Amino acid sequence: MAQSRSSTTKAAKKARGAGKKLKIGLIGFGTVGRSVAKILCQDASGPLQLTHICNRNIEKKKIAGLPAQIRWTSNPDDVLGSDVDVVLELVGGLEPAGDWVRKALRAGKSVVTANKLLICESGPELVDLARKMGKRIEFGASVAGGIPAIIGIQEGLAGDRLYKIAGILNGTCNYILTKMEATGASFREALKEAQDLGYAEADPSADVDGIDARAKLVILTQAGLRLRVRSEQILARTISTIESVDFVYARDLDCAIRQISLAQKDTPQGARLSAAVQPALIPSASLMAHAQGSQNIVTVTGEFGGRVIFSGYGAGGDPTAVAVISDLYAIARSTGAPPELFPGAGETPESVSGDFTVPHYLRFVVRDRPGIVAALATILAKYQISIDALLQKPGFPHSALSFVMTLEPCDSAVLHRALAEISRLDFHVEPPLCLPIFLD
Amino acid sequence: MAQSRSSTTKAAKKARGAGKKLKIGLIGFGTVGRSVAKILCQDASGPLQLTHICNRNIEKKKIAGLPAQIRWTSNPDDVLGSDVDVVLELVGGLEPAGDWVRKALRAGKSVVTANKLLICESGPELVDLARKMGKRIEFGASVAGGIPAIIGIQEGLAGDRLYKIAGILNGTCNYILTKMEATGASFREALKEAQDLGYAEADPSADVDGIDARAKLVILTQAGLRLRVRSEQILARTISTIESVDFVYARDLDCAIRQISLAQKDTPQGARLSAAVQPALIPSASLMAHAQGSQNIVTVTGEFGGRVIFSGYGAGGDPTAVAVISDLYAIARSTGAPPELFPGAGETPESVSGDFTVPHYLRFVVRDRPGIVAALATILAKYQISIDALLQKPGFPHSALSFVMTLEPCDSAVLHRALAEISRLDFHVEPPLCLPIFLD
Repeated sequence: MAQSRSSTTKAAKKARGAGKKLKIGLIGFGTVGRSVAKILCQDASGPLQLTHICNRNIEKKKIAGLPAQIRWTSNPDDVLGSDVDVVLELVGGLEPAGDWVRKALRAGKSVVTANKLLICESGPELVDLARKMGKRIEFGASVAGGIPAIIGIQEGLAGDRLYKIAGILNGTCNYILTKMEATGASFREALKEAQDLGYAEADPSADVDGIDARAKLVILTQAGLRLRVRSEQILARTISTIESVDFVYARDLDCAIRQISLAQKDTPQGARLSAAVQPALIPSASLMAHAQGSQNIVTVTGEFGGRVIFSGYGAGGDPTAVAVISDLYAIARSTGAPPELFPGAGETPESVSGDFTVPHYLRFVVRDRPGIVAALATILAKYQISIDALLQKPGFPHSALSFVMTLEPCDSAVLHRALAEISRLDFHVEPPLCLPIFLD
Repeated sequence: MAQSRSSTTKAAKKARGAGKKLKIGLIGFGTVGRSVAKILCQDASGPLQLTHICNRNIEKKKIAGLPAQIRWTSNPDDVLGSDVDVVLELVGGLEPAGDWVRKALRAGKSVVTANKLLICESGPELVDLARKMGKRIEFGASVAGGIPAIIGIQEGLAGDRLYKIAGILNGTCNYILTKMEATGASFREALKEAQDLGYAEADPSADVDGIDARAKLVILTQAGLRLRVRSEQILARTISTIESVDFVYARDLDCAIRQISLAQKDTPQGARLSAAVQPALIPSASLMAHAQGSQNIVTVTGEFGGRVIFSGYGAGGDPTAVAVISDLYAIARSTGAPPELFPGAGETPESVSGDFTVPHYLRFVVRDRPGIVAALATILAKYQISIDALLQKPGFPHSALSFVMTLEPCDSAVLHRALAEISRLDFHVEPPLCLPIFLD
């Protein structure tokens, strides 16, 4: 019952046998790093020992309460050249973190990282390098923080054939959108509040434009659908175009608006991928609509097991530290390099598009005059797109009238061609907003 | 990215290197066994090869479409004495399944089982035996079918200190209760329907009296809270006392009624355990209330990571087969016996009780006369228990008046002493129903 999945590394076995531990050198002492250090140092009897902490201007970063024998340094080479067994990279960003990770692996150390950009960009290469060196690289914290989604998908569901991954993978966007929904705040107001609370960066574009979630979707697509994609192949649309009025209309449709990351094969055996990160309408009663604030949710659908859901805190120091430390335990238990068990995992899809055949939500803001709906309907009809319903709340000025059209399921690529034509009409006060409606 | 957590067994490596496979002998060819066989035989290029299928009266069980080289037999010794690498036990029940599992391990084979009773009763002993033989026993399918809860908890959350596990672990009860809720059916009617659909056994007691869920809770308590308990230490209350009127009152309280399995330490570091399987009120808006029909849900709460939720199909041939096959892959990747990494996992709790300090729901059916509420309130006051609200729907006859009392949080042990006294009052038409209300 208390078993783990693999034997101890010789090093770890010897270390523990001799009362020694797996030595860990931490590079990047921010919020997550501090949580990791705090938790590791609480469990002095465990198999993990933090021996180095590295950060720029380390003198300013030192905190009290950690064991005296920890070496504090501002120079990553002090860690990379040391006798640590595992380098824990919590710096983030492609470089210099990537350089340090490669150096660590080449120096015969295993690596644990929470760096989604690096794993998204170079994961397969780094896994290959680790295997070549007989070492491991673990990145459970790179997606959905404290939720054990990667191990759950890659190992716990290894026996299924997954064909769809959908999730809320960015807590900042979820915070902003659930805030707008609950309070009627504008995007700017909700963003400002998220920034004041430290949930959003001064430059929020990586979050709100979907770049962050896209990197995570690339990693999940590799782990779950066993397809290798590059992030630039995946459509990312900003949530900054969502206005408070959209939540009013969405509520009339029994829907919530969330930033949804979705990757889906055409069939369980298929090799054509549709993938996108974008704001979308989802049913208010759905589990994804229930993820509040900074919570994350990952749902995967398999040919045999149906839908499985993982949910929890996707960010924050302590939850992310749990994922990091769980990865450290996995290394403590491991026997070195993992084999490549799933030969399919390196395959590239036949095609990648951001198109889904689903109902859509169109919101227009127009200078009111007769004939607007007729003009829109004519263009949509030309593209064989059927209107489902027309919603208009009272109280808007004629100079900036906001109304919504919902469409029967249609291919979003076709719809965007129609919208390009519609956008050229002269009554728009702002560009039309188009959101997919994901009903399941 | 496509890595797994451990290296290949020598046998598996050699086998695959030579174009051979991990040989699997299946004992127990029911619904799950057929799903496993179907899925395994679809993937002829994978590392797993089904070589034996064993069941009583095997001639009647044979199905078409499986490879001709599979050996069909009614004699388990044909499997146990063969050259299979893994014995897959899908018979269920303590004996003779336990005997076969022990024989398989002693014969130097690894074992995969979905047998919750066996693992609940003898898990630690079997894991020890497997380790002694340098082999593995995996039981991911024994809890919550297709949901990767055990690996998610035991490995993905290894870095946390879990102190609470709550879940809906029995799909039959969940089917019956959600059916009663949706249609107003009585327990008997909903049970009959579940039986007609094959969701419930002719003798439904293992499901409706909480015996099945309790075995799963024992396994999860071991994996997640790292405490060893015996099933008879855990309180199990039947759902058969729930009446359709309870759903009417529950709805007024914005609650649903579900069979909830709950195990909780007194503190994250504590060694006192409260654990029970029982019908309970939970908020209608909660995720657990959203588990429909035969779905399962497992929530775990840790000191650092907060609450993590796993949800999906807990039963059925194909979802359970996914868990079984994922375990087979884990063995294909493994290096033999796992180490005992978590020394705490064998600890027994200081104490085990079925008591929780929470609000409660009391439903009485009485012959109406003046003074009933006063009599109840007097006894409750004697035990320092405060009444929160009194609910009474119109339309009941005076001879069998049904009403509900909700109580402020109190220790359920104290409350049950009060209820013993209350039960002796002469106005009851049926024994009072007492359900805990779990608000988080």
